[in-house]
Amino acid sequence: MNTFGKKLTLTTFGESHGKAIGCILDGVPAGLVIDETFIQSELDRRKPGKSKLETGRKEDDIVEILSGVFEGVSTGTPIAMIIFNTNQKSKDYENVKDLFRPGHADFTYFHKYGLRDYRGGGRSSARETAARVAGGAIAKLMLRELGIEIRSGLCEVDGIKGEVQDFEYAKRSKMYALDPNKEAEQKAAILKAKEAHDSVGGVVLTTATGVPIGLGEPLYYKLDAILAEAMMGINAAKAVEIGDGIASSHLKGSENNDQITLEGFKSNHSGGMLGGISNGDTIIVKTHFKPTPSIFREQDTITTHNEAVKCNLKGRHDPCVAIRGAIVCEAMMALTLADMALLNMGKKMEHFKEIYTR
Amino acid sequence: MNTFGKKLTLTTFGESHGKAIGCILDGVPAGLVIDETFIQSELDRRKPGKSKLETGRKEDDIVEILSGVFEGVSTGTPIAMIIFNTNQKSKDYENVKDLFRPGHADFTYFHKYGLRDYRGGGRSSARETAARVAGGAIAKLMLRELGIEIRSGLCEVDGIKGEVQDFEYAKRSKMYALDPNKEAEQKAAILKAKEAHDSVGGVVLTTATGVPIGLGEPLYYKLDAILAEAMMGINAAKAVEIGDGIASSHLKGSENNDQITLEGFKSNHSGGMLGGISNGDTIIVKTHFKPTPSIFREQDTITTHNEAVKCNLKGRHDPCVAIRGAIVCEAMMALTLADMALLNMGKKMEHFKEIYTR
Amino acid sequence: MNTFGKKLTLTTFGESHGKAIGCILDGVPAGLVIDETFIQSELDRRKPGKSKLETGRKEDDIVEILSGVFEGVSTGTPIAMIIFNTNQKSKDYENVKDLFRPGHADFTYFHKYGLRDYRGGGRSSARETAARVAGGAIAKLMLRELGIEIRSGLCEVDGIKGEVQDFEYAKRSKMYALDPNKEAEQKAAILKAKEAHDSVGGVVLTTATGVPIGLGEPLYYKLDAILAEAMMGINAAKAVEIGDGIASSHLKGSENNDQITLEGFKSNHSGGMLGGISNGDTIIVKTHFKPTPSIFREQDTITTHNEAVKCNLKGRHDPCVAIRGAIVCEAMMALTLADMALLNMGKKMEHFKEIYTR
Amino acid sequence: MNTFGKKLTLTTFGESHGKAIGCILDGVPAGLVIDETFIQSELDRRKPGKSKLETGRKEDDIVEILSGVFEGVSTGTPIAMIIFNTNQKSKDYENVKDLFRPGHADFTYFHKYGLRDYRGGGRSSARETAARVAGGAIAKLMLRELGIEIRSGLCEVDGIKGEVQDFEYAKRSKMYALDPNKEAEQKAAILKAKEAHDSVGGVVLTTATGVPIGLGEPLYYKLDAILAEAMMGINAAKAVEIGDGIASSHLKGSENNDQITLEGFKSNHSGGMLGGISNGDTIIVKTHFKPTPSIFREQDTITTHNEAVKCNLKGRHDPCVAIRGAIVCEAMMALTLADMALLNMGKKMEHFKEIYTR
Repeated sequence: MNTFGKKLTLTTFGESHGKAIGCILDGVPAGLVIDETFIQSELDRRKPGKSKLETGRKEDDIVEILSGVFEGVSTGTPIAMIIFNTNQKSKDYENVKDLFRPGHADFTYFHKYGLRDYRGGGRSSARETAARVAGGAIAKLMLRELGIEIRSGLCEVDGIKGEVQDFEYAKRSKMYALDPNKEAEQKAAILKAKEAHDSVGGVVLTTATGVPIGLGEPLYYKLDAILAEAMMGINAAKAVEIGDGIASSHLKGSENNDQITLEGFKSNHSGGMLGGISNGDTIIVKTHFKPTPSIFREQDTITTHNEAVKCNLKGRHDPCVAIRGAIVCEAMMALTLADMALLNMGKKMEHFKEIYTR
Repeated sequence: MNTFGKKLTLTTFGESHGKAIGCILDGVPAGLVIDETFIQSELDRRKPGKSKLETGRKEDDIVEILSGVFEGVSTGTPIAMIIFNTNQKSKDYENVKDLFRPGHADFTYFHKYGLRDYRGGGRSSARETAARVAGGAIAKLMLRELGIEIRSGLCEVDGIKGEVQDFEYAKRSKMYALDPNKEAEQKAAILKAKEAHDSVGGVVLTTATGVPIGLGEPLYYKLDAILAEAMMGINAAKAVEIGDGIASSHLKGSENNDQITLEGFKSNHSGGMLGGISNGDTIIVKTHFKPTPSIFREQDTITTHNEAVKCNLKGRHDPCVAIRGAIVCEAMMALTLADMALLNMGKKMEHFKEIYTR
Repeated sequence: MNTFGKKLTLTTFGESHGKAIGCILDGVPAGLVIDETFIQSELDRRKPGKSKLETGRKEDDIVEILSGVFEGVSTGTPIAMIIFNTNQKSKDYENVKDLFRPGHADFTYFHKYGLRDYRGGGRSSARETAARVAGGAIAKLMLRELGIEIRSGLCEVDGIKGEVQDFEYAKRSKMYALDPNKEAEQKAAILKAKEAHDSVGGVVLTTATGVPIGLGEPLYYKLDAILAEAMMGINAAKAVEIGDGIASSHLKGSENNDQITLEGFKSNHSGGMLGGISNGDTIIVKTHFKPTPSIFREQDTITTHNEAVKCNLKGRHDPCVAIRGAIVCEAMMALTLADMALLNMGKKMEHFKEIYTR
Repeated sequence: MNTFGKKLTLTTFGESHGKAIGCILDGVPAGLVIDETFIQSELDRRKPGKSKLETGRKEDDIVEILSGVFEGVSTGTPIAMIIFNTNQKSKDYENVKDLFRPGHADFTYFHKYGLRDYRGGGRSSARETAARVAGGAIAKLMLRELGIEIRSGLCEVDGIKGEVQDFEYAKRSKMYALDPNKEAEQKAAILKAKEAHDSVGGVVLTTATGVPIGLGEPLYYKLDAILAEAMMGINAAKAVEIGDGIASSHLKGSENNDQITLEGFKSNHSGGMLGGISNGDTIIVKTHFKPTPSIFREQDTITTHNEAVKCNLKGRHDPCVAIRGAIVCEAMMALTLADMALLNMGKKMEHFKEIYTR
């Protein structure tokens, strides 16, 4: 239940304010050069406290590899990675110990398990996504060998849509904005909400280029279905679109079909897949994030003892979780594609024979 | 790869024009009264040819239970069900034998597997969803014992949005329309497209009421993530929203949070879940379907021998796949919730002990 | 729970006296020529009633492929196979309807599920193994392409050990005896027990030759562990040995180690695996079967209503289940090795890259 | 592939001479009191260097819980545990860096993965079993709540069989001997082999009492099959017997059947299960271990560069791996039974309803 993937599996552990978070990534083929600097750089992109658009909580998020790598190369055995928690302020949560923060998982965890680790949301905290980014970084190293590149950025913030998709710009942008012309407006919306002790939503566009034809395992491990699962499972995600997504449902079949020529598909409404299998075109996924539930305004709630109370949060929180969510979207897409690439091996008898009979 | 679920698993088989399609549903608790009439009635709701809004292809879709039921009751062993194909017209597909129909999975199946069953899309055909509906019907029988009810209907067709959600009306509507006031307009749009040899998209709203708190297994088998997978995996689905979905990303945190009172949540923006676990409120999911890719207009495509040709389809097809998709959405939600209800058992030590020590 | 394997999965259904038994075999690579005559011939080897050493119950066991094969070749989609039950005599079981036959699963099924299909043992009947043999036959076709051959035979009956292992002889022997010199004595023991309304145990030796180095996925899907699971899961199996097995525990390390030369291993005490991975040598597994629990002597038992009664069985039963068990052992080894061969693809980066970048 | 279990899952990581080994145990119900002292005491029973019957390598094997436990109680989230490696002497392995030690997994790992961590066997080392013991300790805490007790001991060493099964004695015995009268003889055999730079095999008997009726999930997750997998997967295991095991195959059906009375089964030849489901009687499993492959005698082998050489091992090794194997057998049985106990919940509709409708 804490494992993602079938042949490349990421199993994570850890709570927001426990000793450490981490993961076991199993299924990485032997012989992959493990670039630890790259893994750390991915974590640095996700780590909090880089700008005033993010939570003030600073975590160094130093990742350490415990197993599965020998002399700089993967050995085919499970790769365990650990990130020790260093900047927890559990005291910030003393006052919410007995109440359910609106919009958070406090209520459901308490009822499902009969108890909960109230410090910073415990297991339900987005802090866990650091482990996904660590695992995703290794998946990216695998995909890089196939020429697959994954990129992301914010195409919308607080309802302000970008029109341009400049992934190179997004890399440098502090809020991973895709449209340089809209960034200032989007940024202002975030800061305005922050000042009002409130928060805003946003939309992350994630793409993969260089994806070979054939990834995705119908009928119940389709590429689109698993990407939807992967993205919807990220904290605060509320909607996922593949390709044109919702816009597709407003088109006629004659407009939406991607006709085919000898040079390739004439268009890419489908977002790079047909029947749940990649078609060689760019994979396109949009993930819609709700506004951060942690806001600094008084809200109604109840306690674990069933009393009506007012909830007044303290602490440090992102005014727009979609920003750091972008890096997590990349990680989840990388894990999904790498898993699919491994699963797709052995779909043709000729490959099955070849690998054993040469 | 052809199995959905973890503790209640549906494994399906069959191609559009093969001998039969069917499924094995494993994990149904022993002692459930299996109402075969109900299962058949669910298949009847999905079966084609009921009105001119659907494909003219008529399939009786008579389901037969082969195992797992004894004297009208489930025995705890796998329940196999079979539906023989009776109205295949493979000849309709002779002319597309060597070419890839735009918008279909022909291209990707051919490249993934190196060959394909071209008759009616083979395995990629939506015909397979009859097996899901059969499995989903039994899941509904399980859920009914807990007081859970699943309902669906079309809330949008060809961009024409309904404003009312009348599920009782939808049950009687030939196009499962939720808004009686919009039905005529929506129907006209479908028929207009059909006359123009074209097709339209639509949106299905699916809900579940009576869901207990606690369903959903974080962090990688969350209720929202698995519902997203379940819905996105249905043929022609391109987007999935949970609760307010995309609209959530346009709200402020203070607007989107569902505050809590002693009487329950003040609102249900979340769609009945928090942190991927059901919160006791109504589960709300929207699934967006693209227009049917099978249209009767000339389109550009290429052949399996890499020649550019014109594609002119024959046969019988739904002008709006979202209609029958609604029944499939219900089935997938039923399978997901029943699986989650089984998985959730044993999350508390008190239940674990109780079952064995009384 | 009714599925065996990870990448090549066999899911079976059906009860002894239901309408049909069958299976879905998922994961077969596309492009395998499916020799239906061979599949049927494997079922014929397992089917009952071929000699007086077996149950008198005659089942034709005609297998029919429902999906996954097109124009004689696998398509990469699930292969469903069905065997209709034709010779059930449910009346034979009327008198055991309410009691637990000693040595059978009646007692445990009744208590686990709260009810049971009492006809012929229902799901717990060895009849289900016909579905394994059907699935195993296709696995054998896959393995044949790699040059792997699986063979079996009885190396012991009622404590009478064979000394010779003549697999060619076993194929022709009505009791699959490996030692032509011991066959008469072993046969006499079976018939003597049969006349005494009793039954005997036996031991099946199963081997695989031509197995490439590298099959088996440590640490929790090791080849030896999964073969042990596969064999122990066969009805009436009570012990499994790999290679020298129990004899190994009587040797010194210096005697038991298989030393290595440029020509290969000097000996094969290990049974063809090291660390749970195949080493290229012959895979050797022994499966020990208890005597058939169905005997025609009066036994003490209790009823479902908790009354002490005498159990007097009717019907037709094998006096030595190990005989037909041999064919099931082959099937389970074939399924295991084919699964392992698929799983092993993608263990080296060079293969991962190669398949996608040429 | 590095995960054991279905609902209670143990995923392990780590190599003999890496930074750390450890595990993630997922699926523990919330509300279990986690007795860390007990977990450590289990590791102490397995740790090396306690007597001259074991390897001289001393490892403190201090286990640290990283997650999943809050205020001394399990929270229902994954429990990660880590054991840092402290006493590695990688230099001991410099001389075997390029060669394959006979009887070890060096040969197969190298060929499967194309490279290997040669230090102490890397991932294939029995050192990993410390992680199993940590996970098994928590499984034991779960089972204890149900009144299930697991015990083990050596019933045979170097062919010297014990006749008595005194589990209380075994707990105090340095070699976990079950028969006090045979211990001296067995011990002498071990020491004699050690002096001769050789090693011996042994047999571990593992039992579980207090097991409720109904554990085991037919047909492909049977209790006997999974116990066979669990035990055969332990390093150096070569055979597994359930109940009377091999002896069963020498009996007649009339002798082997466990007849039933109102007071229970008259005998327990079956080892506490029927049809792969526990019958309420004592679970009995025997695991046969080969002699330690690490011996200090010259052996023939080849190098990774395909040259014939002599292998002369250095380092510190157990002369009889079965001794410490006993503790691992207990852990694997505990993990199996706890998993089965969780899986068995929800097999009856009455339980399914009850948990949600009270």
